[in-house]
Amino acid sequence: MKIKDLDRITIIGLGLLGGSLGLAVSRAFRNIIRVGYSHRGITRRKSLNAGCVDVIKESAAQAVAGAQLVVLASPIGAFADLMLEIADYLPERCIVTDVGSTKVLPVRWARKILGRRVQYLGSHPMAGSEQRGVDFARADLFDDAPCILTPTSQTTQVTLDFVKNFWRSLGMRVSTMSPAQHDRVLARISHLPHVLASALVNCSDGKELHLCGRGFLDTTRIASGPPGVWRDILLANADNTASAMDRLTRELTRMQKALRTGDEKAVMKLLSEAQAKRNNLVEKKLRRKELPG
Amino acid sequence: MKIKDLDRITIIGLGLLGGSLGLAVSRAFRNIIRVGYSHRGITRRKSLNAGCVDVIKESAAQAVAGAQLVVLASPIGAFADLMLEIADYLPERCIVTDVGSTKVLPVRWARKILGRRVQYLGSHPMAGSEQRGVDFARADLFDDAPCILTPTSQTTQVTLDFVKNFWRSLGMRVSTMSPAQHDRVLARISHLPHVLASALVNCSDGKELHLCGRGFLDTTRIASGPPGVWRDILLANADNTASAMDRLTRELTRMQKALRTGDEKAVMKLLSEAQAKRNNLVEKKLRRKELPG
Repeated sequence: MKIKDLDRITIIGLGLLGGSLGLAVSRAFRNIIRVGYSHRGITRRKSLNAGCVDVIKESAAQAVAGAQLVVLASPIGAFADLMLEIADYLPERCIVTDVGSTKVLPVRWARKILGRRVQYLGSHPMAGSEQRGVDFARADLFDDAPCILTPTSQTTQVTLDFVKNFWRSLGMRVSTMSPAQHDRVLARISHLPHVLASALVNCSDGKELHLCGRGFLDTTRIASGPPGVWRDILLANADNTASAMDRLTRELTRMQKALRTGDEKAVMKLLSEAQAKRNNLVEKKLRRKELPG
Repeated sequence: MKIKDLDRITIIGLGLLGGSLGLAVSRAFRNIIRVGYSHRGITRRKSLNAGCVDVIKESAAQAVAGAQLVVLASPIGAFADLMLEIADYLPERCIVTDVGSTKVLPVRWARKILGRRVQYLGSHPMAGSEQRGVDFARADLFDDAPCILTPTSQTTQVTLDFVKNFWRSLGMRVSTMSPAQHDRVLARISHLPHVLASALVNCSDGKELHLCGRGFLDTTRIASGPPGVWRDILLANADNTASAMDRLTRELTRMQKALRTGDEKAVMKLLSEAQAKRNNLVEKKLRRKELPG
């Protein structure tokens, strides 16, 4: 199937990501039918009213009937159950993907549960915010953001091209890596920051916190993300995240030693390296228009 | 001296804070003369051109002549030298303060170098950004931000009231604590986040970094701050910062253990506590109008 032939998509899970996906799809594809399902009745009604989907179904199984592309957009913790629910109802040759923040487990579940009757390919559109729910859905959520696809030896070129073009149609910058590499990388650039932000809040004294400035608030912003979603993510990538924490602890020890010995040069070196590295990153993101100028 | 009698202020150091201070003072006080000094000729010219000061002097000693209030706004590392330079030129009964991010050392230096001929009271206006230099100066930098004053047994009530009213006139929310308590608190809510942000950047693999999303960028924003300024701050508060790092490491160990043992409940508890605590903080800041609504 080619991307221009896509005329029916099913989105399962209608939170910030699923709802925004519906809006973005309607902006990118003309005459496409968007079918949605959420396990919560109020979310189903809201999604329909907000125009995130064209049709809403009362079960995941009903929602996938006739779909060319199915996107799982629930928290990862619900993926396996959802796959079990839809497995027998997925149309032959249907393509299934997801928006989960880890990929090793979803890929493993898909292989086990969905088998080979459908093509499954993991996606990780790296968009979102600490906000939660379809109320915050917006059509531009995916614009210019990175999206990582995780093909395996069982992924056909046709499927890979199709899913690539799907996310590109929504304005995303698509790259590919193996599920294992994805989870290692994400542990460091996404899951570790979340763990850190939470730890920083938790180790602060509530009575002093109101004195904090913008620095603290920005550094900890992601700690306001939904705990249930993040519990699933962290547990689905526990080993990599724990290893990334070891790496960070070693880095912190370096600074702590420099501070305790009053080693001006070492402190300056660590701070300068971090500044240069981050400034390079920001410049690159600005050049690629992944950040507003 | 009462705040309404203030008609001549000297700002030493014309970076983001010093420059913004000049602009904020001119917005808040009519008919006040703002005298400035920076050790860099180009900064002196820029500050004058940008209207951050009314008069610019070629030395700190010249700049303090006739001042009612002197504000040291250079990096902390330059404070002791600047105090030595101005000590003999400060008018009798002049009030001296600073905008340094640590207070124990500045207070100690002032007692030693400036003695009792002038009244010194440490201030920490908690405003700023990762941007640097007078080019980024703006009159509203201090609006609704916290400012901590650190009086000692040698601070007179008149001086305390004067400096309090000065920062309040600029729109700040003033509180007081001892220099030692200030440095302990700031280690946790400001210096630790900086160290963390830097460590997070430093322990990341440059090749993967471009894949990061907004979460990583926000969590590490402050790592783009000027390394020289932060080296001074961290070294001036090394013991407290190192202790805060120990506290954070213990918090991280808790999460790491929960991840390694797959303890769902413990992971959820840590994430939920952090989310609730930060959301409370943000609500409080919104109520106090310290954050835009």
